[in-house]
Amino acid sequence: MHEVRLDLVGSLQASGPEFVKAHGTENDFVVLPDLDVALDLSPVAVATLCDRRAGLGADGLLRVARAGALVAAGVLDELPAAVAADDWFMDYRNGDGSIAEMCGNGVRVFAHYLVASGLVSASEFTVGTRAGARPVHVWHADGHTADVTVEMGPVRLTGESKADVAGRTVAGVVVDVGNPHLACVVEGLDKPALDALVLPDVVAVDSDVFPAGANVEILTPVHEGAVDMRVVERGVGETRSCGTGIVAAAAAALRGADGAAPRAGALTVRVPGGVVDVEFSDGSATLRGPSRLVATGRLTAGWTTS
Amino acid sequence: MHEVRLDLVGSLQASGPEFVKAHGTENDFVVLPDLDVALDLSPVAVATLCDRRAGLGADGLLRVARAGALVAAGVLDELPAAVAADDWFMDYRNGDGSIAEMCGNGVRVFAHYLVASGLVSASEFTVGTRAGARPVHVWHADGHTADVTVEMGPVRLTGESKADVAGRTVAGVVVDVGNPHLACVVEGLDKPALDALVLPDVVAVDSDVFPAGANVEILTPVHEGAVDMRVVERGVGETRSCGTGIVAAAAAALRGADGAAPRAGALTVRVPGGVVDVEFSDGSATLRGPSRLVATGRLTAGWTTS
Repeated sequence: MHEVRLDLVGSLQASGPEFVKAHGTENDFVVLPDLDVALDLSPVAVATLCDRRAGLGADGLLRVARAGALVAAGVLDELPAAVAADDWFMDYRNGDGSIAEMCGNGVRVFAHYLVASGLVSASEFTVGTRAGARPVHVWHADGHTADVTVEMGPVRLTGESKADVAGRTVAGVVVDVGNPHLACVVEGLDKPALDALVLPDVVAVDSDVFPAGANVEILTPVHEGAVDMRVVERGVGETRSCGTGIVAAAAAALRGADGAAPRAGALTVRVPGGVVDVEFSDGSATLRGPSRLVATGRLTAGWTTS
Repeated sequence: MHEVRLDLVGSLQASGPEFVKAHGTENDFVVLPDLDVALDLSPVAVATLCDRRAGLGADGLLRVARAGALVAAGVLDELPAAVAADDWFMDYRNGDGSIAEMCGNGVRVFAHYLVASGLVSASEFTVGTRAGARPVHVWHADGHTADVTVEMGPVRLTGESKADVAGRTVAGVVVDVGNPHLACVVEGLDKPALDALVLPDVVAVDSDVFPAGANVEILTPVHEGAVDMRVVERGVGETRSCGTGIVAAAAAALRGADGAAPRAGALTVRVPGGVVDVEFSDGSATLRGPSRLVATGRLTAGWTTS
């Protein structure tokens, strides 16, 4: 019996980037603190890291850096609207390596990370995103759980449309939360019937109304201040939770008889991944919900290759 | 603006168990070193940890402890065949929290971890499993990659059977690798046609032949010493790789004209998750393939709850 090369025995000390694995209502993320913007987040590297079997696995990646540092490094062309150079910026990437402007569940996790890591000690601060500044309020945060409110910005109801879902035609409200949604409140639908629906990976929507497709929410009518909802995300299929979809669904559920968005109101939305609360005020929405930090660690040297 | 509780700011120091995330041909695992057998691996805790969105996510969990310590702690009733009390034992759990006896890809990852962590410095040693002792040879191992051969034990060809797969009836060989397989070499099938097959989550097999069901392998005939293969695992659906399935497929591809298992022979098997090599000698098989350590870290305190 010969020995393995002795310089390799005990070589487990990982030398790649530090990370935190986390989720908000089971929308899960790899958080990568990268204060010096030293990491090359190529689409291949991100997709490798987010691959659920060959990598660490996640729906998306949240790089942590100050907005000004990302501009200086050329990751951002300029500071987005109302974002200051000193603001912490959520550099969000989808699991396939593409860039998305915003992720409501991601902002809660991002804010949780900032407080738990000690980078922020205030309870109210601004998170920069490509969609602009997102003020947050951290009600509680420890090394495992947090309860965070995110200002999601203006919500616009722009009409009605229909889609074929699970063998029936459902009517919905066209909602713009920065991205397009068809939010369908189904009369008479209760939670057991909602759970039993076989949702497709792709819901065909009216291409005249949604030239770039839409996220589709199916939800029950309001009962005791709450709705149950499922969501099929554009390009992804059904997910456990979608922050903007939750806001769109709440706006559809609370809209006035004139079809306008609610001037003020609150609603609890139960999704497969958890429970969140939406509030509307002056046409803007806040989303309050949980964040969970699952693990901290360091990637091995070959983290950009499977 | 008030402050978050100051004792919670910077509270990210994770206090749960240490882990390594790893995979063998994209069959992925959470490795939990637990030398004192102090962890309570209840089915709920394992399922929570292996949940891909609420937890760290993996196909299965590999607890690392010496066999004798697991017996002393009551995890094992007794030492399995040919396993010594001092042998490192792969306490394997499926992602749903149930116990499985063996996992060929898991043993490679387990051996890789033992060498990379410094717990073992030899290149040949025995890994204990519930199915008995599994000798391994570590050809190379560093903190990221390894190349490992595992002795998979006796392989028996016990007859022929059929199944309906992707709209056609395919004939296969009944193979016992400690668990039951129907390995189907499809004449005329090439890799593009194999890739194009729409495989079901469940393949109905002859319940007279397989009273407890079977794993089903679909593979090309041997070409230049190699086959391409896909596998539908019993109770799971299609996976990227299955160690015993690879061995079963190789045995079927190499069987003699008399239907007997090959006395000696070698075959490269390409699965969706990677490439491995199988060798037969005296009716027993070895499986050689890669292991990748992706990340090291520590779970947060609430790791058993989502």
